[in-house]
Amino acid sequence: MDAECYLVIDVLRATTTIAVLLARGAAEVRVVGSLAEARQFGGDVLRAGEERGFRPEGFDLGNSPTEAATAAVEGRRIVMATTNGTNALLAAAGRGAVFAASLVNLSAAAAAAAQYRRAAILCAGTHRGTRFALEDFAVAGLLTATLARSAPNLELGDGARLALACGRTPEASGMVRAAAHARYLASVGFGADIEAALQLDSWPVVPHVAASGEGWAALRC
Amino acid sequence: MDAECYLVIDVLRATTTIAVLLARGAAEVRVVGSLAEARQFGGDVLRAGEERGFRPEGFDLGNSPTEAATAAVEGRRIVMATTNGTNALLAAAGRGAVFAASLVNLSAAAAAAAQYRRAAILCAGTHRGTRFALEDFAVAGLLTATLARSAPNLELGDGARLALACGRTPEASGMVRAAAHARYLASVGFGADIEAALQLDSWPVVPHVAASGEGWAALRC
Repeated sequence: MDAECYLVIDVLRATTTIAVLLARGAAEVRVVGSLAEARQFGGDVLRAGEERGFRPEGFDLGNSPTEAATAAVEGRRIVMATTNGTNALLAAAGRGAVFAASLVNLSAAAAAAAQYRRAAILCAGTHRGTRFALEDFAVAGLLTATLARSAPNLELGDGARLALACGRTPEASGMVRAAAHARYLASVGFGADIEAALQLDSWPVVPHVAASGEGWAALRC
Repeated sequence: MDAECYLVIDVLRATTTIAVLLARGAAEVRVVGSLAEARQFGGDVLRAGEERGFRPEGFDLGNSPTEAATAAVEGRRIVMATTNGTNALLAAAGRGAVFAASLVNLSAAAAAAAQYRRAAILCAGTHRGTRFALEDFAVAGLLTATLARSAPNLELGDGARLALACGRTPEASGMVRAAAHARYLASVGFGADIEAALQLDSWPVVPHVAASGEGWAALRC
C-alpha cells in the first residue's frame, strides 16, 4: 500500500522500547538490519536489541521497556537490532513519514498520523515479519478506533475494518496478553515488560524515523 | 502451517459456488490454475469461472452461486478457474485433506474438519491471494467459533484467536457485506450473489479436493 504516513507497530516490544528510550532523552535510536550490523557500528553508542527475546551477548541493553525506563540513556546514541520491529521500521523507512507506534504512545501516534491524508498501519508480526502476531493487530485496532473518532469520514481498507471491529480497549489488552509471543515472553521472565507495554499513553513521545548518516534512526518528533 | 486438514474459504464467491454446484449434482468441479487452462481442457465439460467478477468469454458459467442454483449441472463435469478461490484450493491440494468452506456449508465443513487433530483455515483473500479480504476472514471466525464449541480445549494460533474474537454471526454477516469485494460485486450487479453467499448452511455439502486425472477436483465428500 502506498501511503503518506506509516505507523509501525511491534508492541512486544521494539516500538514500545524505542518510545521509552526517546522519552527518557536518548539522542537517537539507530535502527539496523541485524545484530551483526549493530556489533560493527562504530563510535560512542549503546547497543540494544534481542535474540529470541534476550539481550545479545556484548550488548548494553535488551529490548525491554522496563529496562529502558531506568537505564542511563539521556543524550546517548543507541543502535538497535531486533527480530521484527526494527526490520518493519526499515521496511517503511523512506516511503513516507514513518512513526513507531505502541500503546505507551497511542494517542500521540494517532495525532501524528492524523496530519496525513493517507495512513498505513504496518504490524511487525513475528518470524521476521512473515507471520501474523495478535498483539500488534490489537494495537492497530485501538489506533484505527482513535483515528476514526477524529475523522468520522475515514475510508477504511478491509484490514482496517477488521482492526476497528477489534479496537475496544479491554478486548485489545486481552488480545495482547493472549498472544503467543506474550505467553512466550511471560514464560521466559519478561512478564513485567508486557504489563509496561500495556500502559496506555504512559510515554507520549512519537519516534519518527529519519535518515541518519547512511542509515535510519528513530528520533523524537 | 502444516496441518492434517485445510479449510479453504473464498466466500465471495468460489467456495460458495462450488458447494452449490456439487449440492446440485455436478459430478466434479476440476480446479485449474488459469482461464487459459480451463479453455484448453478437453472433453465434455462445462467451463466456469470469472475475470474481474464476470463470466469469461466462451465460458458456460460464471462464478455465481445464484446461477449455480438453477443451472443444468447434474451429472456434469465442470472445469473452473477464478482469481483467488481456485488458486487457494490448488495451493492446499495434496498437503492434507482439503475442503472448500463457506457460509452455505459452514456447519458441515466444521464437522468435516473436526475429524482431524490439526486443522488450518486458508483464506483466499484478494489480488491472487496477496491481500487480506475481510469477507473470508469473517467466515473463518464463524468456523473457528463452531470448531471451538465442539472442542473446548482447542489450541489456537494468533490468527485463530483473532478470528474467534470476530466469530459472532451478526458481526460476521456485517463484515461480509462491508468488505471491499462485496461492495465491488454489488456495484457491478452481483448483489444477489452476496445474499446467497450469506445463507448459513443452505447447501450443506462439503467439497473435498481430490486428485483427478492429472489435476485436482472438488468432489462431494
